[in-house]
Amino acid sequence: MLIADPHDPRLDDIRDLNKSDKSGEGLVIAEGHLVVSRLVSSRFPVRCIVGFANALKHYVETYGEPGCPMYEVDRATLAEVVGFDMHRGLVAAADRVAPLEVSEAISDAKTVVVLEGVGDHENIGSLFRNAAGMDVDAVLLGAGAADPLYRRSVRVSMGHVLRLPFARFDGGFTTWQRNLDLLADAGFHLVSLTPDNEAVHLAEALAGHDKVALMVGAEGPGLTEHAMRATHVRARIPMAEGTDSFNVATAAAIAFYERQRSLYQG
Amino acid sequence: MLIADPHDPRLDDIRDLNKSDKSGEGLVIAEGHLVVSRLVSSRFPVRCIVGFANALKHYVETYGEPGCPMYEVDRATLAEVVGFDMHRGLVAAADRVAPLEVSEAISDAKTVVVLEGVGDHENIGSLFRNAAGMDVDAVLLGAGAADPLYRRSVRVSMGHVLRLPFARFDGGFTTWQRNLDLLADAGFHLVSLTPDNEAVHLAEALAGHDKVALMVGAEGPGLTEHAMRATHVRARIPMAEGTDSFNVATAAAIAFYERQRSLYQG
Repeated sequence: MLIADPHDPRLDDIRDLNKSDKSGEGLVIAEGHLVVSRLVSSRFPVRCIVGFANALKHYVETYGEPGCPMYEVDRATLAEVVGFDMHRGLVAAADRVAPLEVSEAISDAKTVVVLEGVGDHENIGSLFRNAAGMDVDAVLLGAGAADPLYRRSVRVSMGHVLRLPFARFDGGFTTWQRNLDLLADAGFHLVSLTPDNEAVHLAEALAGHDKVALMVGAEGPGLTEHAMRATHVRARIPMAEGTDSFNVATAAAIAFYERQRSLYQG
Repeated sequence: MLIADPHDPRLDDIRDLNKSDKSGEGLVIAEGHLVVSRLVSSRFPVRCIVGFANALKHYVETYGEPGCPMYEVDRATLAEVVGFDMHRGLVAAADRVAPLEVSEAISDAKTVVVLEGVGDHENIGSLFRNAAGMDVDAVLLGAGAADPLYRRSVRVSMGHVLRLPFARFDGGFTTWQRNLDLLADAGFHLVSLTPDNEAVHLAEALAGHDKVALMVGAEGPGLTEHAMRATHVRARIPMAEGTDSFNVATAAAIAFYERQRSLYQG
């Protein structure tokens, strides 16, 4: 259905994306064909897809009918509504749903990652992308972790925040500790990632465990001492002298790789 | 020496950074204490360091006298000169120097990375940071690789583009092939990184080699077939079904990790 008027209220879900990621309105925004298709096949109820005529046509041809309203707009209208020139010409909005419980997120999981204080939306997005790429089963968001459903996180994750189960793991020290106990009771081997030279090599820390929970902290400060103390082992990625810690999503990717490698070797 | 006039020509080296990375003027720009210190200890001749009084004082206390002019400016002056509010308050400029020859860059190297078509400045910066962190000895820039000395690359690399040797590897197909032959003749095991499921596991591809050259391509297209054909083996990082390739700097980081791991195990 063609909408020519930029003030049409049916376009409100994607209005002023340059000023807001729509979190405040309880919405999740997806941009581009691949990410929109991941939103459509996710647990989030899609409200609408808006795009150029050819982008909508291409979407339906590639992914089928989405089962939600599709609004056709021209380039000028879309630019006026979202607040910038969206050259890919396809955007969708969905309602947020309640986050999973930790117990749900980990129920069938073999590999999970626990974040403490990863507050950057781009890092969170990259981390989900890397986790999805290497068969991590769930992401547990500790205190200070950024919202994975923020528009930028959705985009950087290539939509994997919409697919990969995650749960909130925060609520202060007591809850944090209780959740870690829950993981340990469920048979997870808890591993802290740290640049500390005293820690054991990542490969040794991960070898021979059926279930692994990898804990990573924010770039810069890293994990707190109390978080590391609550894990079974501290693991390091060996680094060259005179260099800095890695970006948190990169360090996590290496750990996910090592985890898959340990399973691959049997 | 305090400079109060934003039009003072001694500040020309850092003028209008918002509009230009100064490459066109043959300059390299470093921002912040750590990166400036890496510029000062690099092979690039530093022309000046400009900063707030406390930033300059802190720099000298931490890293010693830099052996170049230091100009003190206040916040408003610096903002007017560079074109944005530079809250860290420390910036330096150096002259570019001629790039190394490939033969120089690889002379004592055990691990090198060869880039084909990695055109994004942020990816190039991340890649250098990851390479430096995992003892890669040199970066060889093939056709289409972005300039590592671009301001954004310098910043994202944490200054490692200023420390890690690199050389241009391009000049068309003939030169590319000749350079690969040079690597092979020098005893390097040439390894292509590809998401192709037919390729061997990265761990198998890297095991048991004294010298390794890892070749990576741009995100999206990846390495060209002719580049891969010129290597000894094609290696893959196993990926979960239904996921995309990794960011190129992330994939490279995993390969660097695996390389270090193979040496660590002996």
